Amino acid sequence: MGYKYVYQFSEGNGSMRELLGGKGANLAEMTNLGMPVPQGFTVTTEACTRYYQDGRTIAPEIQEEILTYLAKLEEITGKQFGSAENPLLVSVRSGARASMPGMMDTILNLGLNDTVVVGFAKKTNNPRFAYDSYRRFIQMFSDVVMELSKKRFEEIIDEVKAAKGVTQDVELDTDDMKGLVDRFKAFYKEEKGEDFPQDPKVQLMEAVKAVFRSWDNPRANVYRRMNEIPYDWGTAVNVQSMVFGNSGDRSGTGVAFTRNPATGEKALFGEYLINAQGEDVVAGVRTPSPISKLKEEMPEVYQQFADTANKLEQHYKDMQDMEFTIEDGKLYMLQTRNGKRTAAAALKVAVDLVDEGMIDEKTAVLRVEPKQLDSLLHPQFDAEALKKAAVIGKGLAASPGAACGRVVFTAEEAKEWHDNGEKVVLVRLETSPEDIEGMQVAQGILTVRGGMTSHAAVVARGMGTCCVSGCGEIVVDYANKKFTLSGKEYHEGDWISLDGSTGNIYGEAIPTVPADVSSGDFGRFMTWADKYRQLQVYTNADTPRDAAQARAFGAEGIGLCRTEHMFFEGERIKAMREMIVADNTADREKALKKILPYQQGDFEGLYEAMEGHPVVIRFLDPPLHEFLPTKEEDIAEIAADLGITVEKIKNVISSLHEFNPMMGHRGCRLAVSYPEIAAMQTTAVINAAINVQKKHPDWTLVPEIMIPLVGEVKELKYVKDVVVSTADALIAASGVDLKYEVGTMIEIPRAALTADEIAAEAEFFSFGTNDLTQMTFGFSRDDAGKFLSYYYDNKIYESDPFAHVDQKGVGKLVQMAVELGRKTRPEMHLGVCGEHGGDPTSVEFFHAVGLNYVSCSPYRVPIARLAAAQAAIKNPRK
Amino acid sequence: MGYKYVYQFSEGNGSMRELLGGKGANLAEMTNLGMPVPQGFTVTTEACTRYYQDGRTIAPEIQEEILTYLAKLEEITGKQFGSAENPLLVSVRSGARASMPGMMDTILNLGLNDTVVVGFAKKTNNPRFAYDSYRRFIQMFSDVVMELSKKRFEEIIDEVKAAKGVTQDVELDTDDMKGLVDRFKAFYKEEKGEDFPQDPKVQLMEAVKAVFRSWDNPRANVYRRMNEIPYDWGTAVNVQSMVFGNSGDRSGTGVAFTRNPATGEKALFGEYLINAQGEDVVAGVRTPSPISKLKEEMPEVYQQFADTANKLEQHYKDMQDMEFTIEDGKLYMLQTRNGKRTAAAALKVAVDLVDEGMIDEKTAVLRVEPKQLDSLLHPQFDAEALKKAAVIGKGLAASPGAACGRVVFTAEEAKEWHDNGEKVVLVRLETSPEDIEGMQVAQGILTVRGGMTSHAAVVARGMGTCCVSGCGEIVVDYANKKFTLSGKEYHEGDWISLDGSTGNIYGEAIPTVPADVSSGDFGRFMTWADKYRQLQVYTNADTPRDAAQARAFGAEGIGLCRTEHMFFEGERIKAMREMIVADNTADREKALKKILPYQQGDFEGLYEAMEGHPVVIRFLDPPLHEFLPTKEEDIAEIAADLGITVEKIKNVISSLHEFNPMMGHRGCRLAVSYPEIAAMQTTAVINAAINVQKKHPDWTLVPEIMIPLVGEVKELKYVKDVVVSTADALIAASGVDLKYEVGTMIEIPRAALTADEIAAEAEFFSFGTNDLTQMTFGFSRDDAGKFLSYYYDNKIYESDPFAHVDQKGVGKLVQMAVELGRKTRPEMHLGVCGEHGGDPTSVEFFHAVGLNYVSCSPYRVPIARLAAAQAAIKNPRK
Repeated sequence: MGYKYVYQFSEGNGSMRELLGGKGANLAEMTNLGMPVPQGFTVTTEACTRYYQDGRTIAPEIQEEILTYLAKLEEITGKQFGSAENPLLVSVRSGARASMPGMMDTILNLGLNDTVVVGFAKKTNNPRFAYDSYRRFIQMFSDVVMELSKKRFEEIIDEVKAAKGVTQDVELDTDDMKGLVDRFKAFYKEEKGEDFPQDPKVQLMEAVKAVFRSWDNPRANVYRRMNEIPYDWGTAVNVQSMVFGNSGDRSGTGVAFTRNPATGEKALFGEYLINAQGEDVVAGVRTPSPISKLKEEMPEVYQQFADTANKLEQHYKDMQDMEFTIEDGKLYMLQTRNGKRTAAAALKVAVDLVDEGMIDEKTAVLRVEPKQLDSLLHPQFDAEALKKAAVIGKGLAASPGAACGRVVFTAEEAKEWHDNGEKVVLVRLETSPEDIEGMQVAQGILTVRGGMTSHAAVVARGMGTCCVSGCGEIVVDYANKKFTLSGKEYHEGDWISLDGSTGNIYGEAIPTVPADVSSGDFGRFMTWADKYRQLQVYTNADTPRDAAQARAFGAEGIGLCRTEHMFFEGERIKAMREMIVADNTADREKALKKILPYQQGDFEGLYEAMEGHPVVIRFLDPPLHEFLPTKEEDIAEIAADLGITVEKIKNVISSLHEFNPMMGHRGCRLAVSYPEIAAMQTTAVINAAINVQKKHPDWTLVPEIMIPLVGEVKELKYVKDVVVSTADALIAASGVDLKYEVGTMIEIPRAALTADEIAAEAEFFSFGTNDLTQMTFGFSRDDAGKFLSYYYDNKIYESDPFAHVDQKGVGKLVQMAVELGRKTRPEMHLGVCGEHGGDPTSVEFFHAVGLNYVSCSPYRVPIARLAAAQAAIKNPRK
Repeated sequence: MGYKYVYQFSEGNGSMRELLGGKGANLAEMTNLGMPVPQGFTVTTEACTRYYQDGRTIAPEIQEEILTYLAKLEEITGKQFGSAENPLLVSVRSGARASMPGMMDTILNLGLNDTVVVGFAKKTNNPRFAYDSYRRFIQMFSDVVMELSKKRFEEIIDEVKAAKGVTQDVELDTDDMKGLVDRFKAFYKEEKGEDFPQDPKVQLMEAVKAVFRSWDNPRANVYRRMNEIPYDWGTAVNVQSMVFGNSGDRSGTGVAFTRNPATGEKALFGEYLINAQGEDVVAGVRTPSPISKLKEEMPEVYQQFADTANKLEQHYKDMQDMEFTIEDGKLYMLQTRNGKRTAAAALKVAVDLVDEGMIDEKTAVLRVEPKQLDSLLHPQFDAEALKKAAVIGKGLAASPGAACGRVVFTAEEAKEWHDNGEKVVLVRLETSPEDIEGMQVAQGILTVRGGMTSHAAVVARGMGTCCVSGCGEIVVDYANKKFTLSGKEYHEGDWISLDGSTGNIYGEAIPTVPADVSSGDFGRFMTWADKYRQLQVYTNADTPRDAAQARAFGAEGIGLCRTEHMFFEGERIKAMREMIVADNTADREKALKKILPYQQGDFEGLYEAMEGHPVVIRFLDPPLHEFLPTKEEDIAEIAADLGITVEKIKNVISSLHEFNPMMGHRGCRLAVSYPEIAAMQTTAVINAAINVQKKHPDWTLVPEIMIPLVGEVKELKYVKDVVVSTADALIAASGVDLKYEVGTMIEIPRAALTADEIAAEAEFFSFGTNDLTQMTFGFSRDDAGKFLSYYYDNKIYESDPFAHVDQKGVGKLVQMAVELGRKTRPEMHLGVCGEHGGDPTSVEFFHAVGLNYVSCSPYRVPIARLAAAQAAIKNPRK
């Protein structure tokens, strides 16, 4: 015999997940544990891979192997597949490495045909049950294997019931069932042009193929992409002898968890149905009973199940999610797996298992998905109050959390009401950079236009503020300070509530409960995470508000302060524009002088908020045209403001036009052209640090100035010279003994390639993996959406390289730069400040390549802390 | 003593160019050869570097060393610096490694002051000469060392002559010279606030500093950038005892070449002036005599000079450019260097030196600058006819060569007239892609608007067609088919001539002489080059015309055929637009079917032109919006053409808008989205090859299909699958045994980083170093102009990375990809098809990293052949 593609349950075990899939491995493990598992075999994931390699066919040798195992199963069960006397019926189920909705789920009762059903009826002494099973099988097989319309089968049943004048399936008798079988088969023949397959072996092979095929169906592909499950894993197929929960009142089927998956509370949690097959539970025709009721109905079975559940949890040392069937008072286990749970439950279970002595802290830390934490970081509605509230509309769930406040329509009003102690929800057609201040003070933001990547959505997520965007049904009447939704008017000052996690809008106040990350299970759990992680976690923050939020979430420093965000408000943008239209250094310096006090004040605020922790400040990065307007009326307004002609502004705008702004005049290229900008920013940073240092002599401030978009060491040196000469003069004059560092972002491929040279000047590196990804792939994030869908459809890329760092390409550059940089400057501090800094798989990579820290938006800090801990536990650094 | 910064001439030799500069090394070499060289010493280029490191000061120890060598010079000459009795006067000259106009040139007579001049007058017994020398020194020193206005000194001389009523300098007597000295000194004091320096040592140090300083003046920087001389080389300073060509009628000064620098003819070539200093020759006040006249005037001196010249040429084994001075009948050699020469002379001298047995073929190949060849590749005006022609206007010298033809104003007319056997010059306000056909048949192109990178200029250079662009003085009257220039009207059909190497426009026919690269000296020389080179040279060509031209220039294949250029003409662009506005695959395929025959015909033409040599065809690359118009009227026209609404076209245009088109939906991303495009192009390529192969059974056609912009192997595989299935079906149906290859461009950093994976699918690589440079540096070529000037000014970049491949960054990626690619596929054919393929320094790099070929535009083919030969001779591959 050649390669082995099929395993009997008793040949496998729980560690063979990759080969047998999760379901198959656990059936094997339960078999080994001596639990009551209906026997069967698993066709491996490798057989699935072969299926695709062989042009979507099952190779003859694999078919043969399946039949060999079928024969063994006949031996074990003492039944015969296709026999009318003592028929073996089987279920066929998919089972990938990871649990995966979207694929073909289950076919029951496979093995029935026109003759077998007769024997089955005789053997069970229950003809109605036998024909009911047969018609169910035809129905399921036609639907999931042959892709016939499910709907038509239901219509036929309805027609039969109508003809008989009944409404419930249970009111149909044996003859009705026989009639259904005939009509189903007729419909099958009509549609497929051939008879319903009578050969059980053909049925089996077709079902196996259907499982394999379902691995590649669109829903499965979408789910995989969302959950980052590699396409090349493939799925296994489990063929298992049938047990019948629908064979009478001493039979039944159910699902249960060893702990409550919503809260984590330790108690059996689940439900069951008497005289039913699994599909009935799912279909929801009858209402299942809570598992506790089984204790009364079948106390022995219940006890056996409770013991089994307990044994499984002890064995797997994790909360289990189980399926079981009872056949004539006998319990069968059909599945067990680690149960999915809410974030709160995940934390409680992890902490409880440690307290129960079942797992250690490190294992506990590995038990919570970092991404799950997000749901715990935002305010939530009070659960009881929410039950009573009515949804008045729905938009996009743009930024999670719950918000409750009084309606305002402008950023200015938001600020005014907020200053008067009011909670507000800002309602806008759409938001723009000028609205930032209002957005900062709002509890939530509601927009009429804009998608998940609109200004409102992006900014709100960055701030961790609840946002519902793109609710097109709202009609806003700014002039009369009101909006209309679902036929009702809401005026300025009216209370509304938003759920940024669902997109729901409520026309009333619903009390919210704030997030709490530092006490209780969450607090204990994060203490363990911090104990084991080796990466530091910084935050990207431009305001004291964000900085304080990030500190509360455990950030150990600011890894990226984007100074350009500070140029958009009020008088600043005016001075900024004045600088941009200046056509000589003196005028530019005059305008910069106006910006200086604002910028210095901003930095002082940040230093205060960070209480002596590191703050990395990135100098001006975006192309200057981003600060200029494009609309005629705005241009006219600015011209009037600055006292110059509209024509001149337009000339400036057109002179700043770029074909590829991403690769244009920005980053340190601005400082090379206009060193006075770098000098002003240096003055602001250093003076702010001096002032705050004087106020807090116990802190040791070491400002870190970061020069963006460097591609060549001479370029960095040029700008650094400006920084150093400015800074040294200010420090000398101040009499404060202030140290500072000048470093650079590594975000251009050439910077990574020449990192050894750049490290001669740069005192630290921070990887800007957003831009590095764009340039390494050669695609612009703003434009890639148009073609990436084709790439996903054709499985060229399985995940978004902006969401997870591309380890082969971008990662190679990062690794190269780490090695080259440390060759020149061994003690160099290295971090990452792109959005990847808050992505768990990327964090794991950054841990592995030896960075010192990751920096991410405040609401990702706890996620990064946990991801870093998991990375360190899985792969500790020396 | 520490480090040595000063060398006596007798301490150095000709090989010490880096340290002593060219002039210093050759003065040392001539001294060693026993030639009559006025003695002196050289301050090294390292002293220059120190000068800049020390904040533009000469370190005390270097000053001391200079004075030590000054004392030695006093010993050698028996004269004393600053002595009134027996004064040592010196000249101070700059001398970098490469000859470099733009720097400070010469100060003569240094060492004179108010007392020395008295003694000098007495010693020479020629007070007028002494005071003339002094006033010249003050003048030169004030100008070049102290940066006083030269003009004012000339005015003073004019005032003195006017007061005396004379017009010639020679009419001024000793007292006049004394008066000039006084007035010059007074002006100096007035301007500088201090007396003219009387201490000769101060004069010397100031002069040395001035030479160092001049290394960094703007003219020098511009020259260096143009000629790619590194800034960090620095200049040496030569201090040499004076000899006086202006000390009487037995004295004189001159310059001469050992061969004619314009033609290469073997004969002394030069001129001299009796009783003059070097500056007089340059100033052009008097007309020098040809060197042959010296034979009559001073036969002995002439013979000595001729012998010396001959000896120098034998010694250096190259044509020499020499300066000499005669003092009282005694010959002194002041300089020798390899003479600059025209391309024609360079070829003749190289070939002659081989024939004379002085050098071998390899040395000859190294003797011609590859770039120089360009001037020999284009038609030139008949020299005699040109002398008589009048320039009527001047534009930018956008594409070299000479053109003569009859005026036409549209591309259609150009084609029509050309088809009737007429030579035409196409005159346009500006050109656009629709004009291509007309541009192809024109002798020359003249545009009113557009710079060196305008459409006309770029396309003309690519085609090797003469182009003068941006002649703003022309007023074109399309309606009346005429233009006005310099007050004269030129009508359709009038003869004009253009010189694309100077920008000159002539209002008449001037006969041209065609280029000839295959016979004579050029032909012999290129045979040697081909014998030694190891890189193959391919061409970038999209048309049979370009292909034939490139073949004539020695191209061995087409390394890049850009198929998109084939979509712009006539009916094709219509079908292309039809394809772009199609919103489903069927409509797209219908439009593509219309394009297919054109494309196939194009490829057949190329295969015919290349006579069985390799042809690499790149699939569609630019974003689709490039094929759509932007102007309202054009949009309306197309809408009418395609029979759809203007609105629909506008929607398509806006849906295709991209923020960063460079990094947008283009290259293989188009083929991933619309595989039918790749299928059509494959059909065209394969059918064309089958047809041509059938016609020429003796050729072996192996079409090479190149997929652009690949960043991931799965992406290549996806497109390759389309290509292979299409191609294999066509080949099978044809019965022709055709092989073909599918390869990729490496032009995205990620492709280079993952080249090992990509090589598993790619049968060849071609480096697209244009895009690779853009993405590695993170700047867009279209936008970089706006900030790169600051980078040049601040010496961050010394050369344009699009002109010369950046070896540290881009080159590192290329090298990495070469190694990774060959690891997977050891026999892989590797080439480069960006513009760097025709740049000599880049070619040298590509030779070194082991590519198989470079591909460049037709007119660069001979340059690349020579550059490749030089690279192989300097650094042969195993």
